Parts: sequence; structure tokens; C-alpha cells
Amino acid sequence: MAKPEAWRRDLAAYPFKVAIPTRWADLDMLGHINNVSMAGLFEEGRGRFNRSLELPRDRKTTRWLIAAVAINYLAEAHHPHDVTIASGIGQIGTKSWTIMSAAFQQGECVATCDTTLVFTDETGAAAFPKTFRAKFEANLIRQS
Amino acid sequence: MAKPEAWRRDLAAYPFKVAIPTRWADLDMLGHINNVSMAGLFEEGRGRFNRSLELPRDRKTTRWLIAAVAINYLAEAHHPHDVTIASGIGQIGTKSWTIMSAAFQQGECVATCDTTLVFTDETGAAAFPKTFRAKFEANLIRQS
Amino acid sequence: MAKPEAWRRDLAAYPFKVAIPTRWADLDMLGHINNVSMAGLFEEGRGRFNRSLELPRDRKTTRWLIAAVAINYLAEAHHPHDVTIASGIGQIGTKSWTIMSAAFQQGECVATCDTTLVFTDETGAAAFPKTFRAKFEANLIRQS
Amino acid sequence: MAKPEAWRRDLAAYPFKVAIPTRWADLDMLGHINNVSMAGLFEEGRGRFNRSLELPRDRKTTRWLIAAVAINYLAEAHHPHDVTIASGIGQIGTKSWTIMSAAFQQGECVATCDTTLVFTDETGAAAFPKTFRAKFEANLIRQS
Repeated sequence: MAKPEAWRRDLAAYPFKVAIPTRWADLDMLGHINNVSMAGLFEEGRGRFNRSLELPRDRKTTRWLIAAVAINYLAEAHHPHDVTIASGIGQIGTKSWTIMSAAFQQGECVATCDTTLVFTDETGAAAFPKTFRAKFEANLIRQS
Repeated sequence: MAKPEAWRRDLAAYPFKVAIPTRWADLDMLGHINNVSMAGLFEEGRGRFNRSLELPRDRKTTRWLIAAVAINYLAEAHHPHDVTIASGIGQIGTKSWTIMSAAFQQGECVATCDTTLVFTDETGAAAFPKTFRAKFEANLIRQS
Repeated sequence: MAKPEAWRRDLAAYPFKVAIPTRWADLDMLGHINNVSMAGLFEEGRGRFNRSLELPRDRKTTRWLIAAVAINYLAEAHHPHDVTIASGIGQIGTKSWTIMSAAFQQGECVATCDTTLVFTDETGAAAFPKTFRAKFEANLIRQS
Repeated sequence: MAKPEAWRRDLAAYPFKVAIPTRWADLDMLGHINNVSMAGLFEEGRGRFNRSLELPRDRKTTRWLIAAVAINYLAEAHHPHDVTIASGIGQIGTKSWTIMSAAFQQGECVATCDTTLVFTDETGAAAFPKTFRAKFEANLIRQS
């Protein structure tokens, strides 16, 4: 896995940001934010981004599942400083899409995260609604 | 991220296996093992693999850090069945190496995980000891 | 909170036992099983005990909620040894009941936990079904 | 365990408060903040309170350990609202002390927590430094 490009480590590339206080429990015995805890911070930041998109959700027959998560750890993060999780839409497919996120602490990019999500109905992977596409396009990562 | 190849989903490819009981707390509101919890199960399985390698550890000046984790989620996992985490060494560099893992539940491969680790001393990334290489080579993934 | 009595630290007092492998993630920076992680181990052991009771569960209108948890930490617990969570029924009321648990590691009682559960329906706390009582009485703690 | 008294559910009783954003991961399958997650929120709030006390810490020979935690769950808590953890000193002994905390969400007290801490040195429980007492007395719970 190659190091993320410079624009991935730039807060300005991301349309959505949320500051998440770290918890002492996020630390591991090495005294830094544990790598799984960082995955949890990305989950929380991604969830807040998803909520901001207000995608119509029909729980009865459809949902979206996480197909892949790839995290690059660039620097150690600590407690008690907040971690800001910045997110935007990367690729847009027909059944799946990618959320690109980055974690910042005290102005430094400490990790990046690519998450692939898949829309499913009772038959398995399925095309996501058209209403999703407009929201995705309005929240794209700004690659430079 | 492309789907993992067939051999990655084969328990026989991995030299080390450990069964880890799932916990009810690993579930999320969708009723399946949460994606971050699965990262935690991989961490535990990887740690048990690392311990089996008995790599000489000199905590004072050197340690190894996780540089990247990439997980493919192939099927939903559940509770209370155990998850078996199978691991082996993938690539061997000079300062870094990769652990390839896969998670199995009731015989099915539910996820794969590639973890890149970097050896560090007080100057940053550094060549890992020669004693590591022999242990890595004795625990390679069996690609077919 | 007074120290638990000798019988509370005796594995033989409990009708149900389950060994739960600790996870590295259960440790905190002090190098021991974190107090909240121990609460999680008790939750898992209690859940396995509840499952063994096969209490009839009608999710639509009734459920049981945790009203109180009181944990005494008697000794430090470590990784990677298993923790055995032993559980039994303490007090039996009409709307609520108590599960008494204890955690053992390498034969030593490291913590005790009293959990008060309340049966609820759509109106709030309610009398639990008669079928519960027989199961509770068959799984009482053996005080000595 | 009796229900906490009215003053325990009053934010004004506590000298220290911190708002902690809940995380989606704090939820369990019942759709509310899990009881163990609430213990984690109390841990975080208590840690922030401890840090505010600036107790002198000599890691080499002394530390303080948690001897007991007793939580009353009064109402269900949810996500994504913050939980405010309010804390103050309850009893002050010579080797141990109690932190009394309460959790509030949208103005309602949803849980209370009593934590007993014990000061230890290499011989076991020991008298805590005199400097601690003044700090404890300056941060007492205001019982009414």
C-alpha cells in the first residue's frame, strides 16, 4: 500500500469535518491511540458524514454494508486532544461508492481511510437509488 | 479494492490459526459483527501470531508500528460462534513486513486483512534484525 | 462498598461458568485488564448464562433492562490468560432479579459483580412471567 | 441497590462537568447506549475530572487503582446526543476515596456512578499524600 498523496493529507480536500474527542480508552499499552480505536474514530466520523447526507433509508428491504476499509497510519495520535475526521465521496459506482476520510490531530494528518460501501436489497448487491447520486456528487473529495 | 483471490479464502494457506470467541459486544445495531470489531478480532489473532513467532523485543529502543491495515469484508459474521483468525507472513522487506490474515466462521471466510508493520528505532524506520527474517520465512503464507 | 464475603470468591458457589479468552485490547496503559473491560467480560459471561437459561423472550412487547451493576475489583487481571465468569441468580423479586457473578483468573477471584435486571413491557417495569421463576430457582447461587 | 437520592440526580451537586459526544459504537442491539459503554463514559468523565485535580503522580512507586464501581441506570441514553459526566469527591478516607458521578443527557440524569479508588505503593494499599486531601476537599460533592 503506497503512502497517500499530499492532497489526501490536506484538510481542505474534504467537504465534511467533525471533531471527535479522544477517550483515554482509545489508548493502548504503547501510549498512543490504538490502530483499532482509530478505525473506530473513522467509523464515527463517517457516520456523522453519512447522517449529514440525509440519504433516504428504507430499513425494511435495503441497507448498505461495508465491503472494504483501508487505513494508512501516518503518525501516532494521542490523548486528550481531539481528532478531526474529514470525509468526502471518492469513487461513485452504480452499486457501490467510496468514502475517503482523513484524521487530523493538532493540524497534522495522522491517518487516512478509504471505505467501500455496497448497497444491498434482499437479492444482494443492487443499484443504489438515483437520489443517492446527486448527494454523492455534491460531496465529492476535491482532488488537486 | 479487488476481491481477494481464492487462495486467500483458504484456511490451508495460513501457517497459524487461533479460534476467538465472539462477544455480544462485537455486534452492532445491524445484528452482525461490527466492522471495527472485526478489525479488533484481527488485531487479537495477529497478536497471538506475533507471540508465537517469539520475535526478540527490546522495548527500550525499538518497537514495531502498524503502518497500514486493509480489510475486505466478504460475508456477515455473527455471535455467538467463534471466529478463527488465520495468519501468515506475506511480503518481507528490510524495514517492514506484511501479515496476511483471514477470518473464518463456521468454515466460511468472512474477511481478509493485510497489515503492514514497520520496525522503528529512535531514528524512525530502521532495518529489522536478521533474526526476524528467519522467523518470517518459516511462517510464510502458502500462495497457490 | 464492603469486600465480598468468602463464599462470593468461591467458584463452587456458582451454577454456571464460562471461560472467556482475554484480548490484548482489554488491557489499558497500566498493563492490566481495564476496569471497563472487566465490566465487558462480566456482560459476556452474564449473557452466556442468560442464554443457558432459555428464558422465553418476546421481543415485541417485553424486554429486560439492566438497572444496576456493582463491581468489586479484588486483584489485577492480565492477558493472555482466560477469565472465567461464574454466574448464578441472587435475589428474586417480582419485577426484578439479581445475577451474582465472579471473575476468576488462574484460580484466583479477581472481581465480583452484582447485576440487577428489571422486566419491562410497554408500560414500564412489570411482573416477569411465572416461567422465569422456576428457571431462576434452579440456578440460584449457593451461599454458604 | 436503592435508587439514588434526588440530589444525586442534580447537575448542580457536582463541581466538575464535561460533555462527551456519544459514538454510534456505544449503542448495542437494543438501540440504546450499552451499559458497559456507559461505564466507559463514566471512566472518561472521571479521568477528565482527575486530570483537572492535578494530583501529583509518581508513577515509579505509587499509583491508584479502582477498587469498586457501582452504577445505577435510571433511563435509557441514546446517540448522537452528548452525555455530560458530572463528578465530585464523595467520601475521603486515608488510603481510599470515592468519586461520585452522574450522567446527564438532554438535561435528564440517566445514570449515577460511585467509584472507590485506593492509593497503593509497592507494599499495597497506603495512605495517600496530604496534598491529595486539600484537592479532594476543594472538590466535594454538594449534598443537599
